Amino acid sequence: MTVRLEDYIATIPDFPKEGILFRDVTPMVADGEAFHQMVDEIAEYAKSVGAEVIVGPESRGFLFGCPVAYAMNIGFVPVRKPGKLPRETVSCTYDLEYGSNELHMHKDAIKPGQRCLVIDDLLATGGTAEAACKLVEMVGGVVAGLAFVVELEGLDGIARIDGYDVYRKMYLSDK
Amino acid sequence: MTVRLEDYIATIPDFPKEGILFRDVTPMVADGEAFHQMVDEIAEYAKSVGAEVIVGPESRGFLFGCPVAYAMNIGFVPVRKPGKLPRETVSCTYDLEYGSNELHMHKDAIKPGQRCLVIDDLLATGGTAEAACKLVEMVGGVVAGLAFVVELEGLDGIARIDGYDVYRKMYLSDK
Repeated sequence: MTVRLEDYIATIPDFPKEGILFRDVTPMVADGEAFHQMVDEIAEYAKSVGAEVIVGPESRGFLFGCPVAYAMNIGFVPVRKPGKLPRETVSCTYDLEYGSNELHMHKDAIKPGQRCLVIDDLLATGGTAEAACKLVEMVGGVVAGLAFVVELEGLDGIARIDGYDVYRKMYLSDK
Repeated sequence: MTVRLEDYIATIPDFPKEGILFRDVTPMVADGEAFHQMVDEIAEYAKSVGAEVIVGPESRGFLFGCPVAYAMNIGFVPVRKPGKLPRETVSCTYDLEYGSNELHMHKDAIKPGQRCLVIDDLLATGGTAEAACKLVEMVGGVVAGLAFVVELEGLDGIARIDGYDVYRKMYLSDK
């Protein structure tokens, strides 16, 4: 028995600001059956690309990234905002519509040559995903692929991670 | 074969500010074997208290809470800072040494009477843990217990969750 995972995404108009249609994965995470099924599907993909470690941006990347790492018996490496990781980090800054964002990863988190799978809930503009890939490569890791629950159509985030292998469970519109 | 989980906690003096000895769980999460073992131990506790849903505060509560939920085939409910959860929430404000902190949970996340296990990496002053319990109870849930990887000695966080069942893997000093 499997469930239709698309039914576990909530859609909220005008969040966090007017004109944005927010896709919310928390109903999927809150449902034991749907959550387990989604994690297993990503873990299957992770195996297929030979992932040796999972990398996930805070905070929603942790929701799926950590159980996939657990299911595969491999480690999880968090990508976090400035001031959160206590040891030496590498960092990457990228532009947002207004302002910019800076992400960090512990410098010793990944071994040279290790195959990393980047996991997040949504692929939107691709800025976070691209930054996570750069951080992996800065410390000598290999991006084996990226996995998302949802790819938002119309934002062309996929263009920013061109050349990498990408899994997404579903496509949803951003309007 | 099991590993000694205490060996996977990093200790960083003066982070995030002078005088604080920071206990960092990221080496444990990054090690497949240690991470799996820790999650399994918390899942055993979760079973023993009859947990039906896992509740975890952002962001580090997600690291252990989500894989425990996955391992048990139950759901995970995030407790987050203001402005992060898109649907109707309940909230709880608590005092910090300087200023205050506000935490939210989706109002529909927990069913009345559902047995909830609150999971976080560290029990420090207990403010976050206490707030998470209050949020669970505000929506009619039952706090079946709380689980932490580390309890920091000397901060007496346990006093703020007096009366609840508490699991911690290890005690470490905060100085």
